[in-house]
Amino acid sequence: MAAHEPPGAWCPLPSADGAQVQLAHGGGGRLGLDLVERLFRPAFANPWLDAAHDGAVLDLGQARIAFTTDSYVVRPLFFPGGDIGTLAVHGTVNDLAMCGARPCHLSAGFILEEGFPLGDLETIVGSMRAAAQRAGVTLVTGDTKVVERGRGDGVYVNTAGVGLIEHDLRIAPAAVHAGDVLLVSGDLGRHGIAVMAAREDLDFTPPVTSDCAPLADAVGALLARGLPLHCLRDLTRGGLAAALVEIARAAGCALHVERRAVPVADNVAGACELLGLDPLFVANEGRMLVVVPAEAAQAALACLRESEVGAGAVQIGSVSGGPAGQVTVASEIGTVRKLELPSGEQLPRIC
Amino acid sequence: MAAHEPPGAWCPLPSADGAQVQLAHGGGGRLGLDLVERLFRPAFANPWLDAAHDGAVLDLGQARIAFTTDSYVVRPLFFPGGDIGTLAVHGTVNDLAMCGARPCHLSAGFILEEGFPLGDLETIVGSMRAAAQRAGVTLVTGDTKVVERGRGDGVYVNTAGVGLIEHDLRIAPAAVHAGDVLLVSGDLGRHGIAVMAAREDLDFTPPVTSDCAPLADAVGALLARGLPLHCLRDLTRGGLAAALVEIARAAGCALHVERRAVPVADNVAGACELLGLDPLFVANEGRMLVVVPAEAAQAALACLRESEVGAGAVQIGSVSGGPAGQVTVASEIGTVRKLELPSGEQLPRIC
Repeated sequence: MAAHEPPGAWCPLPSADGAQVQLAHGGGGRLGLDLVERLFRPAFANPWLDAAHDGAVLDLGQARIAFTTDSYVVRPLFFPGGDIGTLAVHGTVNDLAMCGARPCHLSAGFILEEGFPLGDLETIVGSMRAAAQRAGVTLVTGDTKVVERGRGDGVYVNTAGVGLIEHDLRIAPAAVHAGDVLLVSGDLGRHGIAVMAAREDLDFTPPVTSDCAPLADAVGALLARGLPLHCLRDLTRGGLAAALVEIARAAGCALHVERRAVPVADNVAGACELLGLDPLFVANEGRMLVVVPAEAAQAALACLRESEVGAGAVQIGSVSGGPAGQVTVASEIGTVRKLELPSGEQLPRIC
Repeated sequence: MAAHEPPGAWCPLPSADGAQVQLAHGGGGRLGLDLVERLFRPAFANPWLDAAHDGAVLDLGQARIAFTTDSYVVRPLFFPGGDIGTLAVHGTVNDLAMCGARPCHLSAGFILEEGFPLGDLETIVGSMRAAAQRAGVTLVTGDTKVVERGRGDGVYVNTAGVGLIEHDLRIAPAAVHAGDVLLVSGDLGRHGIAVMAAREDLDFTPPVTSDCAPLADAVGALLARGLPLHCLRDLTRGGLAAALVEIARAAGCALHVERRAVPVADNVAGACELLGLDPLFVANEGRMLVVVPAEAAQAALACLRESEVGAGAVQIGSVSGGPAGQVTVASEIGTVRKLELPSGEQLPRIC
């Protein structure tokens, strides 16, 4: 195909001439969703992209596998509780776990900026190694590119992952039904605030540490108990709010959340108040939403609480039949508002 | 793990204090190999990385799959014969094919620079769609990040791929033996020269077009004939030379090439002479080295020549027992020189 030939008979993003990428296109908000729904999904139309899941579930030969990818551009590269290396491993491991898979193998692609200190690269690679060991995955293939000064930001890391699905459940937004309940695995907002504090040199007391951690063992325990999981979603870009909106849309259900049930640590709540942020929209890297039928809620919570990453698990809301795609939040004083996504991200480049 | 905690008991790159990433670390030369062999491979020590192959061959459940990744940072984004989108699909499809796999599914991770024209993104996505259709793969999962102006270069694309291995051959550098012969699938150097011409606004007559193309069907045909393939390698960064050196090292054999047997189109040869480049070191994106036992050479060449991408296939050399790791080239007038890799890339950012 010639370099500038038009892309053919698919539905392009109806952008005005001269429209450009904005920072908000990379966030967990409306513009990011738009880019996926209006550009990428029509171009590559297939059931896997339509599933709006954290990864693709594929039948490959005799195996059922999950396959996912994320690029990591977090700024700064090092923050309390982790660095771009820990993030690049746990983030992709968690996306595999959200498909109900046992994470097995990762790839890593590095885009290095000329002049980046090799010592920092060693530290990041060491973090990736430690995170991979903790999550029980091996990094089996990789690639390194170098770009000129001013064409990158130290290092960007892409990881892709493959995992094995060893059960017959269908864990996906489309499996969410009226009568399900919404559980979160712990307190929210720590990762976004930790990165923001490191970036802007803010001091909170006690300091906020990222929750970056692998969720696969906790998911494995839920599966081992035979619990009827309907959907799993890690609460990264756009936080809990983006996850709820995406699931409500894909499932054609209404989701309702009790704000006072959502756990937020005091230092995170204080930081959010100071910065004018809503913790429901702040990113996490070691927290997930678990959607199960109401009758399985207590067993799922008990199982989650046995794991380190799920010790603070609670029920925060429920699923009803409609209006399809609507998410509502009851405030601490009982008023109910519709939850809408902002156009972009409150905090850009947090992962 | 704390942000700056040392990475633990593995062998770090013995870099002097203050050592920094250089452009040459991203090339197909010695510094790029050093980074892999001294930093990445010890950190993630496992047999897949040790295989020094284009991808990893994995047993996953009942399936034998290949898994690979590459990031694409080509400059300019559009060049005669393709763009970063075609490259990102064919490059990863070809790495899967080099493992002897049938490419099945790709992931795509985009790192967009703020201000990048959405129209260009549409063109690139359209190229990816067309290339995926041509190669018979589906793009099933993806991710988009946006970085601020001056922290990227329009768009960087990462693709990872999974493919299915449906035979029992071991196709890898370590399977290369004395008595094997070296085949290339066509003329060399077109991709690197096409990108260079586009970047520097050079005119060659006739214009040089990238050879960017999927090699999987040609590999599938070789496998379908039951030919005893020992190694396959696409001739990207560092060109034929880098492939030969890497295979000679990994196999512990000596490789010998007859320079006059290596096909180079007249316009590429002319451009190389003008630019002071050796076509053996220039990147290709639709050419491969095929290593087979001598007795299978004619059948393999005949099979390759039946495919569009292999129409110009020829034998260029042979494998002997030693000295281990040595690559020699006989010039057109018969003098023999040892082929050594330069420290970096003749042409940075060609893929």
